[in-house]
Amino acid sequence: MICGEPYIAMARKKKMNLLPTGKLKVFLLGGLGEIGKNLSVLEYEDDIIIVDCGLGFPDDEMLGVDLVIPDITYLEKNKEKIRGIFITHGHEDHIGALPYVLKSLIDVPVYGTRLTLGILENKLLEHSYEKTPILQTVAAGDIVPAGVFSVEFIHVNHSIADACALAIDTPLGKVVHTGDFKLDVSPIDGEMMDVTRLGQLGKEGVMLLMCESTNVERPGFTPSEKTVGASLDSIFMRYQEKRIIIATFSSNVHRVQQIIDTSVAYKRKVAITGRSMINVVNAAIDLGYMTVPEGVLIDISEIKRFPADQITIVTTGSQGEPMSALYRMAFADHDKVQIGPNDLVVISAHAIPGNEKLVDKIVNEVMRSGATVLRDTTAEVHVSGHACREELKLMQALTKPKYFMPIHGEYKHLIMNKELAVFMGTPETNIFVPDLGKVLEIDVKGARWNGTVPAGNVLVDGYGVGDIGNIVLRDRKHLSQDGLIVVVATVDTIDGLLVSGPDIVSRGFVYVREAEELMEEIRSIARDEIEECLDDNITDWAQMKSQVKDELTKFLYAKTHRKPMILPVIMTV
Amino acid sequence: MICGEPYIAMARKKKMNLLPTGKLKVFLLGGLGEIGKNLSVLEYEDDIIIVDCGLGFPDDEMLGVDLVIPDITYLEKNKEKIRGIFITHGHEDHIGALPYVLKSLIDVPVYGTRLTLGILENKLLEHSYEKTPILQTVAAGDIVPAGVFSVEFIHVNHSIADACALAIDTPLGKVVHTGDFKLDVSPIDGEMMDVTRLGQLGKEGVMLLMCESTNVERPGFTPSEKTVGASLDSIFMRYQEKRIIIATFSSNVHRVQQIIDTSVAYKRKVAITGRSMINVVNAAIDLGYMTVPEGVLIDISEIKRFPADQITIVTTGSQGEPMSALYRMAFADHDKVQIGPNDLVVISAHAIPGNEKLVDKIVNEVMRSGATVLRDTTAEVHVSGHACREELKLMQALTKPKYFMPIHGEYKHLIMNKELAVFMGTPETNIFVPDLGKVLEIDVKGARWNGTVPAGNVLVDGYGVGDIGNIVLRDRKHLSQDGLIVVVATVDTIDGLLVSGPDIVSRGFVYVREAEELMEEIRSIARDEIEECLDDNITDWAQMKSQVKDELTKFLYAKTHRKPMILPVIMTV
Repeated sequence: MICGEPYIAMARKKKMNLLPTGKLKVFLLGGLGEIGKNLSVLEYEDDIIIVDCGLGFPDDEMLGVDLVIPDITYLEKNKEKIRGIFITHGHEDHIGALPYVLKSLIDVPVYGTRLTLGILENKLLEHSYEKTPILQTVAAGDIVPAGVFSVEFIHVNHSIADACALAIDTPLGKVVHTGDFKLDVSPIDGEMMDVTRLGQLGKEGVMLLMCESTNVERPGFTPSEKTVGASLDSIFMRYQEKRIIIATFSSNVHRVQQIIDTSVAYKRKVAITGRSMINVVNAAIDLGYMTVPEGVLIDISEIKRFPADQITIVTTGSQGEPMSALYRMAFADHDKVQIGPNDLVVISAHAIPGNEKLVDKIVNEVMRSGATVLRDTTAEVHVSGHACREELKLMQALTKPKYFMPIHGEYKHLIMNKELAVFMGTPETNIFVPDLGKVLEIDVKGARWNGTVPAGNVLVDGYGVGDIGNIVLRDRKHLSQDGLIVVVATVDTIDGLLVSGPDIVSRGFVYVREAEELMEEIRSIARDEIEECLDDNITDWAQMKSQVKDELTKFLYAKTHRKPMILPVIMTV
Repeated sequence: MICGEPYIAMARKKKMNLLPTGKLKVFLLGGLGEIGKNLSVLEYEDDIIIVDCGLGFPDDEMLGVDLVIPDITYLEKNKEKIRGIFITHGHEDHIGALPYVLKSLIDVPVYGTRLTLGILENKLLEHSYEKTPILQTVAAGDIVPAGVFSVEFIHVNHSIADACALAIDTPLGKVVHTGDFKLDVSPIDGEMMDVTRLGQLGKEGVMLLMCESTNVERPGFTPSEKTVGASLDSIFMRYQEKRIIIATFSSNVHRVQQIIDTSVAYKRKVAITGRSMINVVNAAIDLGYMTVPEGVLIDISEIKRFPADQITIVTTGSQGEPMSALYRMAFADHDKVQIGPNDLVVISAHAIPGNEKLVDKIVNEVMRSGATVLRDTTAEVHVSGHACREELKLMQALTKPKYFMPIHGEYKHLIMNKELAVFMGTPETNIFVPDLGKVLEIDVKGARWNGTVPAGNVLVDGYGVGDIGNIVLRDRKHLSQDGLIVVVATVDTIDGLLVSGPDIVSRGFVYVREAEELMEEIRSIARDEIEECLDDNITDWAQMKSQVKDELTKFLYAKTHRKPMILPVIMTV
């Protein structure tokens, strides 16, 4: 083998006596940093494919922002090259940006498994498109041709059913994209991750492994989903006299199935509450991903018809989301469920970083009402859907990639996943820790970083996509810290006289009724500044406004140590 | 023993043939819920004593608030009864409100150990008082008479030196208040928690134990501070070729001492950075709580004079605080320290709930610069200062209290600490889980909840103490979510004509240059509403403003799905 040449290319050369001359470009438009929104791109000459198209949730600095989607400027510009969007599974951070992205890429087919597209279809209903989006259902094992590429779906385990990794055949060799995965040797649906196929691919030769990094900080293996079932059983046994309320992720179909199964075993009826939980359970039953014996599910309004110890309530709110069903129950704002001393509340989830305080808020309130609480910190009521360190190593051992790219995680996770690859024997020069938009270029000579494409966060607020930028966020931050003071004055431009005001309006600054004197001082300073300008024949309102602003800022900081936003408005008659 | 009578009272009766006739009131004005600000009160007829007087940090809803102190309305009203403020240790959540509270309680003496008062004195310098506050230094073992009470200071271990529990003698029996504590059998200063004295008190009879609850979720015993020293030693051994940067709490004098000791052992110079770190280290050296061989400490500006592998930098920022020294180093904004691949950054602290994402932000950035990072999740570089479950049980076993009150924690912690007391054999009826301001009344007949005193959060923003209320916070929240639109118009009241405007000013709503059309629509709707009012001879400006506001709110929600604050201002000429 000639040093530096991908061996797959070499194998082809031997077979076809022809070396591919193009370059494969691999880059991420999402899936890095604290904000999820996964989106990977593979490009070879005139063909592009997209893997996942997710949304992220705003960080603390993105005030008022509802959600974050990837910047797809590059994809819009190269629209005609795109052969398909391949979705690994139906979680928000993998499908959530599609409703937005499809507005400009409506002709691109979307490939995914049945449950994935079932969830996606529900989301698309809330939006309108010029034509019907093209959704193509595939199953694990299917291979989809897409221009110069072909994409094979490979079954993996995850906290949602029907999740897949992808093996993407390119002119330069195979790329394996893990999506999100774990190895579950005793999965609820009986289908273990297809380690056999992954191992085969490894034997045939994998050029590049793009591997998720979420749980790289955790040692060992992630326990099987089935361990939660065993744990639920002993909980139902121990708390037979209580009503049981369980909060979990609505998309975790297998978890909900286990809650229902355990309820059936203990002769309880199950009521579902929370909009997304009801939607997903209905969809999962319709699509055959969940089986519920007749008569077990009851409407939440029927719970009063049964003794409390014969009821299980499955609810949203496991992340402490304000306005979720569990939140409303905890704060006595749910019209059907009041929590009391006879309730056991199980939070069957792990608080995502940043949500800990929200979850604690609910737990404190639930305990205040006298209920008992079990959660993942005190009982085995949750397992992760992501591979821990040993599973990440197993993925590498199976696929034996030439090049390695850690994806899906904060920088610390990517670096730790890189360290695993080093431990597994991949030379450091063959490991590429990505940055958003940074292009990995691979050809027969080797692999290297080469250039960037536009990438970043597009903020969605209400109906507005991308109309919120740094200035707007900076202003919101400023307003949130010390509020604002509006100074309004009407000036007669001909005589150069102040004819009305200045009036002072303040919001979020200080409780005004207790600060009348301060408001009077503000008015008087503003008046002095305006009159001084008028006396000096300054009719440049910008200058007048900036003088008023500067004086008031100085005065207020000296007096209150606060810096409210000051908005002077000069009207002219 | 007569059932229900505190046995200490019985003992007194036997000795003095006289039963105390008064009632002891015990209540908390702080130290519960998510916001620390510890403050406990004991009152017996004409005497009041206060234990601790701390501040808390604002939660996510308290936008722009700098800090939170307890509502002391009740104490101000009963000023002449207060015999002393007894401080258990020098952490912010135990002393931080004193600079504010002393403004109205300047005649009340403050008792604390040497380091505690040393730190307090530094804080008081930033404020001014009508007279000099009365600070009385005590040592563990001292007993301070305070009206009908007498207060004994008992040495405990904690993450700050010179911490004490209090044994308070009252006419009805002994009250033990643990402050914050852990048991460290191999403490850095050689002084283990005085279990002997606590056990003696238990044998003599403790009526009420008020016990902290911070770590009640953690099993076992908290490891000794000395384990961090051993861990630091192997880290310094392993990373001999690197510059070592360690972030920790400035108040953890023993931790800093161990970092210095290890640096000395490995022949490194130590530079201190971060304002509070410099302050505390200087104070600790001056007061004899820290010993540093000559020539070891160097100024941060001198680090360039030594090879990197002979330098340790001790810094603030272990909680990810923006603008802390470590934050500035991570984001290349520190004028003396640039972090690079040759640095080892050790975060010798545990992220306080709510700070995880801030710490992660720094870690990601530090790793991006190529440095190695060690923290408590991956190495033994931190131990807690609070008692775990077994230590909490030990405290109960030593003091054998008749009544038990869990303090210092969120509701979930108090409930779990209550459950420990039940496990230890205290009857449920003798356990009192407090709420802010709820009064526990104890007399010879027994103990019971009886009434409340005013209690709550007083918000401090800049120089303003208590001038921020719910309305201001609600407005800040509103402004932070969707920004604001100011509508200004000048009206001629005599002719009933719109003579200028309406002008539209918006901030934090949408990037205006891309929304000129929208702004024009807003102006036009506002104009129509105002002119309609004028045509109808409506000169009630309040009505005019509310019409403008309602119409614009409706229009903008339909158009953008956002609800900016709308502020109409009508000027008259």
